[in-house]
Amino acid sequence: MNKPQQQQKKVRTAITPTREDDFPGWYQSAIKEADLAENSPVRGCMVIKPYGYAIWENIQRALDDMVKEAGVQNAYFPLLIPLEFISREAEHVDGFAKECAVVTHHRLEKNADGTGLIPAEAAKLEEPYVIRPTSETIIGHSMSKWIQSYRDLPMKLNQWCNIMRWEMRTRLFLRTSEFLWQEGHNAFATAKEANDDARKMLDIYKRLYVEFLAMPGLEGEKTADERFPGAIHTYTYESMMQDGKALQACTSHDLGDNFAKSFEIQFQGEDGNVHNAFTTSWGLSTRSVGGLIMTHGDDDGIILPPKIAPHQIVVLPITKDEDRAEVLAYCESLKAKLKDKNIRVHVDERDMRPADKMWDWVKKGVPLRVEVGKRDIDGGNLVHTRRDIGRDSKTIEAEGAFLNKVNDLLDQIQADMCARASKFEKDNTQTLQTSEDIDSFYANKGIGFIKTSCKLLESEAFQKVMKTHSLTPRCVPFEDNNEFVIIGKSY
Amino acid sequence: MNKPQQQQKKVRTAITPTREDDFPGWYQSAIKEADLAENSPVRGCMVIKPYGYAIWENIQRALDDMVKEAGVQNAYFPLLIPLEFISREAEHVDGFAKECAVVTHHRLEKNADGTGLIPAEAAKLEEPYVIRPTSETIIGHSMSKWIQSYRDLPMKLNQWCNIMRWEMRTRLFLRTSEFLWQEGHNAFATAKEANDDARKMLDIYKRLYVEFLAMPGLEGEKTADERFPGAIHTYTYESMMQDGKALQACTSHDLGDNFAKSFEIQFQGEDGNVHNAFTTSWGLSTRSVGGLIMTHGDDDGIILPPKIAPHQIVVLPITKDEDRAEVLAYCESLKAKLKDKNIRVHVDERDMRPADKMWDWVKKGVPLRVEVGKRDIDGGNLVHTRRDIGRDSKTIEAEGAFLNKVNDLLDQIQADMCARASKFEKDNTQTLQTSEDIDSFYANKGIGFIKTSCKLLESEAFQKVMKTHSLTPRCVPFEDNNEFVIIGKSY
Repeated sequence: MNKPQQQQKKVRTAITPTREDDFPGWYQSAIKEADLAENSPVRGCMVIKPYGYAIWENIQRALDDMVKEAGVQNAYFPLLIPLEFISREAEHVDGFAKECAVVTHHRLEKNADGTGLIPAEAAKLEEPYVIRPTSETIIGHSMSKWIQSYRDLPMKLNQWCNIMRWEMRTRLFLRTSEFLWQEGHNAFATAKEANDDARKMLDIYKRLYVEFLAMPGLEGEKTADERFPGAIHTYTYESMMQDGKALQACTSHDLGDNFAKSFEIQFQGEDGNVHNAFTTSWGLSTRSVGGLIMTHGDDDGIILPPKIAPHQIVVLPITKDEDRAEVLAYCESLKAKLKDKNIRVHVDERDMRPADKMWDWVKKGVPLRVEVGKRDIDGGNLVHTRRDIGRDSKTIEAEGAFLNKVNDLLDQIQADMCARASKFEKDNTQTLQTSEDIDSFYANKGIGFIKTSCKLLESEAFQKVMKTHSLTPRCVPFEDNNEFVIIGKSY
Repeated sequence: MNKPQQQQKKVRTAITPTREDDFPGWYQSAIKEADLAENSPVRGCMVIKPYGYAIWENIQRALDDMVKEAGVQNAYFPLLIPLEFISREAEHVDGFAKECAVVTHHRLEKNADGTGLIPAEAAKLEEPYVIRPTSETIIGHSMSKWIQSYRDLPMKLNQWCNIMRWEMRTRLFLRTSEFLWQEGHNAFATAKEANDDARKMLDIYKRLYVEFLAMPGLEGEKTADERFPGAIHTYTYESMMQDGKALQACTSHDLGDNFAKSFEIQFQGEDGNVHNAFTTSWGLSTRSVGGLIMTHGDDDGIILPPKIAPHQIVVLPITKDEDRAEVLAYCESLKAKLKDKNIRVHVDERDMRPADKMWDWVKKGVPLRVEVGKRDIDGGNLVHTRRDIGRDSKTIEAEGAFLNKVNDLLDQIQADMCARASKFEKDNTQTLQTSEDIDSFYANKGIGFIKTSCKLLESEAFQKVMKTHSLTPRCVPFEDNNEFVIIGKSY
């Protein structure tokens, strides 16, 4: 129950180490074998390789549609933020000052001996800038100009951009000094509207995670210590990875009128008086790709849900020299038929050993593989294999029958992946009442989440247990009437 | 002939100043009135407002499709570039060192008196980074690892990202310290393939400009002095703005093996030997939005080609209190019918004076406006007006007839806009043979391009004339067998 998902017994695995032997090692290796991303020569920054970026593009497209549907407009604000802006909101500056990349010069020049480059002293900025660690401040500044009357509200803005938070310990996708995200910033006339909006945007994220990434999770509120710097409520979606740790998959903040006060986001109300606006901010990043990997992958590599997979189906021609042209022609015609069904399909025509080719796509997590050889064509059949239920689940089927059900099959894979992850989360969530029980659970190598009374948070013994096992309160789930807190280890 | 396009005599204009009185002033004002972008508190950086960003998103989508069709894959590389990388290619560093934003610290701390923030001395980077002014170097570094064999070639990569080049004099969209763009980086086994590719990518840009932005232009090669730092050929698309100045609308560079040598992008060939690769790079930025404005706008504001317009049609309900519900219901049904024809349509339901509403959308350049009042509904008619041929070109038409032709009408607007700009370019391009003639042409307030023999470039008298009138060689157009050069003023 407490082990990573295993669908069937395996002789050997494509990924070393296995999840059970070394989950973090497995994660790095799975990313490498799927060719998703790698470290860069810039400290803590990653290169997102084409296959990894294609996953992110699919996440972007799905979320962007939902966000626009909610009446949000995309815009773009400067990368650099004046120091004075960062300083204005007291909690905000305390939260971010420690990890800001600072721009101090605007020109390079040759050093004294002419062998290298240095920042030019004459081009030192009077006031340095930081690279945005988040954009509440600079967007708040714009909103203060754009919002004058109650008629200008609500104002809902979003930007897709890069973010820099200097990190000392980094892991591909999960924690990097530079990452990609969207950050939404909405403004309202009343505190209630802002709070409703923060909840509504979290619900949109949940829909994205469940329907597209097949990642179940808990919606809830962060405890005070875990809040975003400057927020009055931070809502979160906490998803359980296969090692039982939590991933904070996105957050949505009710900022009250804190930023409105600091940036003078004010409007004339219907009553003729001037009021502070109430704002929210909400973000989802490339971290989601890391979550996808750790939720679904197995010891043969990553497994992608069909809705997010760059290729939903890969067609593998099995050819000999003498039948190559015929087999490839058949594969192209199959591709056209699948495209007509709005399926993202790729034919791998590379000239290499069929087994190597197959393993390549196993490791890349393509939801469905179709193999086609001369004998299959002659028999009117094709062979297809689901990635999610293991490499030996081959089905031989007539082309017509396959085409009739292929869209349903992809939906089934999507649903099964989500159900499997959901079962794992439920199986690995215990309700325990005392600090002693919690201590003993983790001391005995228990993994997963513990649900316990919020009252325990005030106990010193509990805090000590939390520290001993590197636990944090993940959230107070909405579903339990705010009486319980979920604790666990986390990324 | 040498004046900005004017379709008809006008009594008053929505934009002050007019194009004729002060073209740069008109440009700023047209952007403001269309609510596209504005300056930010960060020196030289702009805020792209939602309507401006929506135009950019449409450009992105169109270009991204074409680029993927050409076999290019999107990826993402770090924002920061190590100084050592920038230094490696001699011309490259000379070209960019003077305008680099330099990151020197990774933490802020309170200053001595606790009143502000300063870069923390203890967090000074051993080696500073620059914010990417372009990414040949850092992508070259990755390519050197990813390319091992001739089988890895061609490799075609693209990224959509932000770029920073510190500019002293900035203008919205045209020249800003931070801008958004795509930068493509392709690698090949042979010099010929790289050169062909640089030309091919320029052709793709031309297609984007002509088919989507309705911006004609000249494809050609930059003269040696105007090349990208590190390139052996720089190809360009030069488009004429309504004041006769050239806009370098995008560039595509054949980098030969210069960057391959500096970054050791090498591969084992079919012959078993190690060879340098040959690379290209090609970029198109938010500058294109500035070009769109200056190509098509009139004294009532910007004019958007239908293929790029966020709203292709805006429906304006003309209501009184007693018929409001009926008119709005009709407008919604019209919207649904237009959406079925794949038209991007917006119904402006705001409660304001019809004339103000109309002017709002005139200034925003929406290609087609449809007005609907109770009388029109009762008569089975609607009133539509093309933005491109002037505000008095109203047509009253039965709904059915309008719906039957509306897609063709949008295509016609698109074609007419391109034809008009093309005629303007041709009308304002003179062939002149001598420095004296060129001098006298511009001295007499001539505007536009001069086409002259490339041989003139070597003449001192010609160089003096160029300097006097702030002229630059824009390109050696492909169409004239490399014998002529186009000169003009430029943005």
